[in-house]
Amino acid sequence: MSGEQEKLNVPVCQKKGELAPFAGALPPSADTISDLICRELIAEAKKMLPMAYAPYSGFQVGAALLTASKKIYTGCNIENAAFSPTVCAERTAFFKAVSEGEREFTAIAVIGGKNGSPSDYTAPCGVCRQVMAEFCNLQKFYVIIARSEEDYWLYRLDELLPISFSPKNLGR
Amino acid sequence: MSGEQEKLNVPVCQKKGELAPFAGALPPSADTISDLICRELIAEAKKMLPMAYAPYSGFQVGAALLTASKKIYTGCNIENAAFSPTVCAERTAFFKAVSEGEREFTAIAVIGGKNGSPSDYTAPCGVCRQVMAEFCNLQKFYVIIARSEEDYWLYRLDELLPISFSPKNLGR
Amino acid sequence: MSGEQEKLNVPVCQKKGELAPFAGALPPSADTISDLICRELIAEAKKMLPMAYAPYSGFQVGAALLTASKKIYTGCNIENAAFSPTVCAERTAFFKAVSEGEREFTAIAVIGGKNGSPSDYTAPCGVCRQVMAEFCNLQKFYVIIARSEEDYWLYRLDELLPISFSPKNLGR
Amino acid sequence: MSGEQEKLNVPVCQKKGELAPFAGALPPSADTISDLICRELIAEAKKMLPMAYAPYSGFQVGAALLTASKKIYTGCNIENAAFSPTVCAERTAFFKAVSEGEREFTAIAVIGGKNGSPSDYTAPCGVCRQVMAEFCNLQKFYVIIARSEEDYWLYRLDELLPISFSPKNLGR
Repeated sequence: MSGEQEKLNVPVCQKKGELAPFAGALPPSADTISDLICRELIAEAKKMLPMAYAPYSGFQVGAALLTASKKIYTGCNIENAAFSPTVCAERTAFFKAVSEGEREFTAIAVIGGKNGSPSDYTAPCGVCRQVMAEFCNLQKFYVIIARSEEDYWLYRLDELLPISFSPKNLGR
Repeated sequence: MSGEQEKLNVPVCQKKGELAPFAGALPPSADTISDLICRELIAEAKKMLPMAYAPYSGFQVGAALLTASKKIYTGCNIENAAFSPTVCAERTAFFKAVSEGEREFTAIAVIGGKNGSPSDYTAPCGVCRQVMAEFCNLQKFYVIIARSEEDYWLYRLDELLPISFSPKNLGR
Repeated sequence: MSGEQEKLNVPVCQKKGELAPFAGALPPSADTISDLICRELIAEAKKMLPMAYAPYSGFQVGAALLTASKKIYTGCNIENAAFSPTVCAERTAFFKAVSEGEREFTAIAVIGGKNGSPSDYTAPCGVCRQVMAEFCNLQKFYVIIARSEEDYWLYRLDELLPISFSPKNLGR
Repeated sequence: MSGEQEKLNVPVCQKKGELAPFAGALPPSADTISDLICRELIAEAKKMLPMAYAPYSGFQVGAALLTASKKIYTGCNIENAAFSPTVCAERTAFFKAVSEGEREFTAIAVIGGKNGSPSDYTAPCGVCRQVMAEFCNLQKFYVIIARSEEDYWLYRLDELLPISFSPKNLGR
């Protein structure tokens, strides 16, 4: 993680190629997380693709979560014959971090594809967004949706889970 | 459901009071579902509050789902001591409808609160948004987040689950 | 459901053919639910197979739940691209019944198979057993695992979820 | 983990006090995992209680999972305002291990209680049993349900999830 402090002059958010499977029309957000950090998180997320246990979908996903304390926790998807108990890469990374005492988070990168080869952008599912919302400041937590270190979209969590059901609804 | 065909001159989306617990800043969408339909769905959702099984949170939620075939399916939240197997009101309504053969949907109303008395707006959780995304056209399905028949927000699903992970990601 | 009151002299639990995929060695329980009821529930469960939404596994499941008030609620499995939000046939039946005000249950039949054609016994997953445990007396609720009306295993819930985590653990 | 190899003459399974909340009547299994290993896993599970994130139930749980390669992975429960995305201690431990490449497991210890103080035995929920069934040999994987290092029940997984729905059902 050396180097993520220095401000870079590279564009913060890069996007190449088509974004066909996405329904939304929101512009990617920008400005508070550097391209260098994004690239490093994507690289760590990619390394998790071979760890995925995805015999039912054949769709491998990796994630890398950056904590406020500058540590990176990684995860992969882990499927289950009964489907419901399946966990995604993003949640695996969060559960690892929280169980190690982490409670503040900065950003997460997600990458995935059939047979472990990313071809399209893989956005976090609604379940994972809800887990992020439990721990993160929705305006300050970043989600990096990547096809490679050079080709990714960058969003704030409140762009991906607007009008959220949150701990505040239960009086917290 | 008689009457939902006639175009009304009432405002399509109404909102009174504060929206404190919501993080997002999106303007409510408008124009394709009438106030009359919204009110009827909210009324049906409210009737479900006493059916809720919520001994662990004390937070009751009701939902009413309108199908393309103009039928209404209702649901409530059903909690579980182990938490994970809990189902929300929205999903209960969807599961009932899908198990009866429905596959096309128009709108869903959600209302909830502590001890069955709605005080704030209760937005669908990420899990429920993901279930909606499986069956609905994100640009054409409406979510009504209500405190009463007269006081509600109206959203399109793509405003609540932008950049979704969808069946297309798995090649469908 | 006419006729389930009369005591029959047919064997209560029948089993034909191999039980290859099952790991357990428990003898099927017996004696308090008639073969006639089992057959009727299996027939209702089978009718749900075409309703299943199972594009990802290709494995359809149907269930029929008998309430203490002698009503039958049916369900099917409903999958989701994100896997975790998937619901099984048994839970669908329970959620429908609970949302209609039912709180006491007698038995559930489950049947399933690839392409909707039951070839093997399909046992409830752990998630569904946990939902049953929330509402049922474990010693008095019956689970019918069937390949056809004539070929099924009959279990009490405490045989399928022994030493359960239950509402009592949270002080209820 | 030093010392778990040597065979001890202490009783393998110990139980003191009442077992009030448990519905089952199965005798605890025995003979292939030593008391010393059980005590060490329980000690590791206990250390996780303060890591638990359980603001909604107030019920903290810790788990420690032993791999075939003699490594220990620990977990705690992590709750969510929307309830469904909650994860239990056992699953957290499994997800961590699987995401690090582990695929073979020997035993797991579970301990929990209100305010982090174990008063009763806390059995794994059905969801967690289903996750264990995905990766473990049901006849050879052990579950230690503990109140303290000296006071625990020992089960094989097939005693806790008999007649399981398993990968074999989907043709694996």
